[in-house]
Amino acid sequence: MKRTGYIEEITESWIGQNVVLQGWVARRRDLGKLIFIELRDRSGTVQVEIEPGSAAFANAEKVRAEYVVEVEGELRLRPEGQRKEGLGAFELVARRLEVLNEARTPPFELDAGERVSEDVRLRYRYLDLRRPEMFRNFLLRSKVVAAVTRFLDQEGFLNVETPMLTKSTPEGARDFLVPSRLNQGEFYALPQSPQLFKQLLMISGFDRYYQIARCFRDEDLRSDRQPDFTQLDLEMSFVGQDDILDLNERLLRHVFQSVLDVELPSPFPRLTYFEAMDCYGSDKPDLRFESAFVDVTDLFRGASFKAFADAVAAGGSVKVLRAPELTRKQIDELERVAKQNGARGLAWLRRDADGFGGGISKFVEAQREQLLSRTGVQTGETLLFSAGEWRGAVEALGAVRIALRDLFDLAAKGPRFHIAWVTDFPQLDRDPETGKWTYMHHPFTAPHPADEQYFGTEQQGRIRAQAYDLVLNGFEVGGGSVRIHDPKVQTRMFEAIGFSEAQAREKFGFFMDALEYGTPPHGGIAWGLDRLVMVMSGASSIREVIAFPKNNRGSDLMAEAPGPVEEAQLADLGLALRRD
Amino acid sequence: MKRTGYIEEITESWIGQNVVLQGWVARRRDLGKLIFIELRDRSGTVQVEIEPGSAAFANAEKVRAEYVVEVEGELRLRPEGQRKEGLGAFELVARRLEVLNEARTPPFELDAGERVSEDVRLRYRYLDLRRPEMFRNFLLRSKVVAAVTRFLDQEGFLNVETPMLTKSTPEGARDFLVPSRLNQGEFYALPQSPQLFKQLLMISGFDRYYQIARCFRDEDLRSDRQPDFTQLDLEMSFVGQDDILDLNERLLRHVFQSVLDVELPSPFPRLTYFEAMDCYGSDKPDLRFESAFVDVTDLFRGASFKAFADAVAAGGSVKVLRAPELTRKQIDELERVAKQNGARGLAWLRRDADGFGGGISKFVEAQREQLLSRTGVQTGETLLFSAGEWRGAVEALGAVRIALRDLFDLAAKGPRFHIAWVTDFPQLDRDPETGKWTYMHHPFTAPHPADEQYFGTEQQGRIRAQAYDLVLNGFEVGGGSVRIHDPKVQTRMFEAIGFSEAQAREKFGFFMDALEYGTPPHGGIAWGLDRLVMVMSGASSIREVIAFPKNNRGSDLMAEAPGPVEEAQLADLGLALRRD
Repeated sequence: MKRTGYIEEITESWIGQNVVLQGWVARRRDLGKLIFIELRDRSGTVQVEIEPGSAAFANAEKVRAEYVVEVEGELRLRPEGQRKEGLGAFELVARRLEVLNEARTPPFELDAGERVSEDVRLRYRYLDLRRPEMFRNFLLRSKVVAAVTRFLDQEGFLNVETPMLTKSTPEGARDFLVPSRLNQGEFYALPQSPQLFKQLLMISGFDRYYQIARCFRDEDLRSDRQPDFTQLDLEMSFVGQDDILDLNERLLRHVFQSVLDVELPSPFPRLTYFEAMDCYGSDKPDLRFESAFVDVTDLFRGASFKAFADAVAAGGSVKVLRAPELTRKQIDELERVAKQNGARGLAWLRRDADGFGGGISKFVEAQREQLLSRTGVQTGETLLFSAGEWRGAVEALGAVRIALRDLFDLAAKGPRFHIAWVTDFPQLDRDPETGKWTYMHHPFTAPHPADEQYFGTEQQGRIRAQAYDLVLNGFEVGGGSVRIHDPKVQTRMFEAIGFSEAQAREKFGFFMDALEYGTPPHGGIAWGLDRLVMVMSGASSIREVIAFPKNNRGSDLMAEAPGPVEEAQLADLGLALRRD
Repeated sequence: MKRTGYIEEITESWIGQNVVLQGWVARRRDLGKLIFIELRDRSGTVQVEIEPGSAAFANAEKVRAEYVVEVEGELRLRPEGQRKEGLGAFELVARRLEVLNEARTPPFELDAGERVSEDVRLRYRYLDLRRPEMFRNFLLRSKVVAAVTRFLDQEGFLNVETPMLTKSTPEGARDFLVPSRLNQGEFYALPQSPQLFKQLLMISGFDRYYQIARCFRDEDLRSDRQPDFTQLDLEMSFVGQDDILDLNERLLRHVFQSVLDVELPSPFPRLTYFEAMDCYGSDKPDLRFESAFVDVTDLFRGASFKAFADAVAAGGSVKVLRAPELTRKQIDELERVAKQNGARGLAWLRRDADGFGGGISKFVEAQREQLLSRTGVQTGETLLFSAGEWRGAVEALGAVRIALRDLFDLAAKGPRFHIAWVTDFPQLDRDPETGKWTYMHHPFTAPHPADEQYFGTEQQGRIRAQAYDLVLNGFEVGGGSVRIHDPKVQTRMFEAIGFSEAQAREKFGFFMDALEYGTPPHGGIAWGLDRLVMVMSGASSIREVIAFPKNNRGSDLMAEAPGPVEEAQLADLGLALRRD
C-alpha cells in the first residue's frame, strides 16, 4: 500500500482519518492488554497503539526492534496528560499491522549513539545511519548541495565533469595510482583536484564552470582527513579577485539562508594573511571570539629582560595574549601547547591589585604601565607572552589562543558562525626541511602584479599571491586564487621554485602548451564540502557527514576494503607483489 | 573591465550604448582601411569593426586568430544589405581594443570541426571544446543534470555520495584496482556502480536516494564506451515497480520539457522483453519507426519448403520483415548483417505485379495469399525472412531491421524521440560459453513472486525479473529493478546461479548480513547519463559529451595518461612490474 505520508507530515487534519505509515520498530512495549510501538521513519517517530482483539495484535506480538512494518488505522490525539510536543501529540490506533521484513537483534542500541565504539558503528554503518542525528546530517548535506547547484545554475555556471583516471595534478601530495591493463606497466592517477582541467575549461572558453568533485590524496590519515573527499570546485573567466569573492559571498549567503535560515554578513570580513597571523597566530583564525594579540615588541627593544630583548634585537616580535584567570595547572597545560608548537616556553604574569604578580612579573616592571594600558587586562586575569622570530612567535601563541578557547568555551559566547576571507597569502614559502623555495598554494597561482618585481631576487618571499582562503569558525573551508594566464609569468614562477624547463614540461607540459593558445584571465576556488557541512551541522568529525567513511587506517570496516586480490588480476595488470 | 554581457545577450536596447565585450578572435579581416574581427564567446559571435585612426586600430593590427581580447565601443545595427539574422544584425564599433592574451596559431582550424582527425582533436581538446557545437553539448548536459537534481530534490530524494575506493561490486565486469599504501598488498576497487551502497542506504532508512555517480569498468573499449562513465543513480523504498516507473516518467518528462521543450508521452509505452524481442529482435528496439516482424511460423508447419519447415519442426520460428524495394547489392549487404548476427543466410522475395518474384518466391507459392495479407506488402517492396530457434531468428532479423533503418533513414520520418520501457526481463540466462545459469541484470534483482516456484527447477529460465530498461531511440539509456529484500529469496537466487554459500559470503557477505537487519521493500534505476545526453544532443559518440574523454586504448591523449611512474612509488605500494 501507499503510505499517507512521512511521519513528520502528520498534522491535525489527519485526525480521524485512515492513515497508512511505514517504517521501523524503534521500540515495542507489551503491556499484555495493549501493545505500543514507536514507529520510526527517516523523518520522525510516532506512537502506534495496537488493541487486543484487533487483527493487528497477533502480528504486533511477533515484532521486535528494527522490524520493518506497515501499519494502518485511525490517527488520533493522545489522551490528555500523555500528550507531548510535536509528533508526541498523536498516536495511530492500528487496525492492520503487516510485517514487511524481520530483523536480527542489532549489535548495538541505536539510542546509545556515539557511546558505541566507532569501529562497531562503522562496521554496521547501515544501522548507525538509522540514528536520526545521522540522517539529519545527510539531509543537511543534500540541501547544501542543492542550494549550491541551484544558485550556480542560475548564475550561468556549467556543471562539467572532469576525468577521474588522469595524471598527477599539481597539489604535490601523494597520488593514488590505478594500474592500466590496456597499457601494461603504466598507471593513471586519481585526481587530487580538478585544478588543471578546470583551468583548461577556461582556456576552452566555458567561462563559468563548477563541479561537485571527488578528490583523492594518499596521505597518512588524521581524524579530519579521508583518502577521498569532496570539493565544490568552481572557476570563472574575465574576472579579478573581487569578482570571485563577491560571487562566493552571495553563494554562501544563499546556502546559509536557505538551508539554516542563518544570515551571513555582507560583505564578509577580510583579513590579510599578515593580519591573521599577526593578530591571531593562524591563517584560519577562529573569530567567533576576539582575543587578538597585542604587539609589545617596541616595549622590549633594549630592555633589561634579556629573553625578550634578544628576540627583538634579532628582528623578532613580542606578542601578548590576554587570558582569563588561570590556575597553575592550566598555565602548565598551555605551556605544553606552546612548546608543541615550537616555543621554548610560555612567559606569563597575573594582574593583581597592585600591578603584576607571578611568572615574569619582576622582569617587566619598566613596561608595566604600557602593558596595562595596551592590553586592558583586569585584576585576576593573565597575560601570556610569546617572543621570537615573528612567524614562530605568533604561531605558538595562536595555538595557545585555540587551547584557551577550548578550555573556557570562548567561542560559545560569540555568533554561531563567523566567516571571513584571509587574503594576500605569500606566493612562495621556504620548505622547512630543505630551505628551498616552493609554492604556498600551487604553482598556477597569480602573484600581485606589483610584487612580480621580486621574482628571482632575495626578496621573493615578499611576493603576495592573489590567493584567498575562506575561514569558518576556525576551519579552512575553501581556498582559491586568481590564476596565472600569462605564459611568461608562469615561466618566472617555475624558475622561482627551481623547476627547470624540463621538469616543468615533464609534469605539466600539456598545460603549459594550452596556456599559449589564448588563455583568458581567470580564477576560482574550491570549497571543502565535507568540512563545510561538518561545521554547518555541528558534527565533531567529517566521518559524521560521509555516508561510508574510511577509518584512520584507510579501511572500510563494513565492506572490508581494501582487500586481497587474485593473482590473475595482478597478472592482467603486469604487476606482482613485492616479497621483501 | 566588466563586460556588458555575453554576446548572445546583445539586444536592440544596447544600440547606441557603450558596450564592453570579451572573447576570442574567431577571424580577422584586414581591409587596409578597416579591420573586422569576428569576436566569439561561449554564447555566440558578433562582428567588431575597427576604424583607422581609432586607438584600437594599432592593437587590432596585431591580433591573430584565437587571441583573447576586450573591446569597447558603440553597438549599432549593421548597414542594411549586410544585416543578417540574429546576432548578424549587430556590430560593435570599437573605440578600444585590448589584447588580454596572445595565442599561437592553432594546430587545426576550429571551423573544420569533425573533419579533423579525432586524435588531433583529443590532443588539443581545449581548442576542440571552443567549437560552438561542443559547447552546446556541454550546456545541454549541464541543464539535464540541473533539471534532474531540481526535480529529485523537490521529490524528497537525498543526494548522497557513496565510496569511490571500495570493494568489488556485483556487475561482474573487470574492476579497476587501486593499490593501498597503508595496507600494502591490498587493493581497493573503483565502483562499477553504487549498487550495494544504494541498497544499504535503503536499509538505513534513507528512503529516497540519488547521486550523479562516476562508475568504472575495465573493459576492452568500443566506440561508445569509456573506462569511466556517469550514472544518474536512484533508489526508493516502500515501492513497487509501477511507482518507480511512474517517478522516472515524471522525471524524464520534466527533463525533456525544461531542457529541450519536448513533450514526452504520458504514460511511456511499455513492452515486455518478449514482445520487444519477438516484434523487433532487440531488447532496446528503435521505435521511431514501426517495421515490426510478422510471425508466419504457422504457415510453414509441415510446408514443402524444407528450410523453414525444419525450423518450425524443431520448435523454432519464422519471422518476416517488410522492407522497401531493394537492389541486389542492398540485399547482399543485409544478408551480411544477418550472418554477422548468427543467421545462415537471409531469405527474401519481391512483391511484383503478379505475386512474388526472386529469392525464395518459388518455394512459398502455397503461402502467397497469407503472406500478402499478413504483411500488406506493396508492389516493388521486399519481404525478408528469418527462420530458426526463436532468439537467434529474431536477433538476426533485428539487426537487419536496424541496417534497413540506416540504409533508408527510416527513423527520420518518425518522432525526434521515442522512449519506452522494456519490462519483464528474464531473471536468469545461460552463459553462452559455459551453458551455466547466470543472472541477467545482477543477483539482487527481484523475481516476479508468481515465478519464484521455478527456482531450482529445469524451468528456471522462465522466471521473469521485476527488471526494466529505459529505451530511447534504440539506445538503452537506463535500467533498474525491484530488489530482493527477503534474505530467503536472496539465498535461492544465489543457489540458482550456482553460488555456494561460501562464495556468496566472500563476495557479498557484509551485504547479506545487512539484508537481515530490517530491509524495506525497495528498488531503483540507473540512467546512463553520457548516453542519454548523447541522444538528446544528437551527438554521434559519447566522446562528444564528455569533456576530456579517453580514446579507444583508454588513453587521454592530451594529459598523456596513463603513464609510467617512478620505482619509488611502486615500492611504497609494495608492488613491482612483472618482467616476462
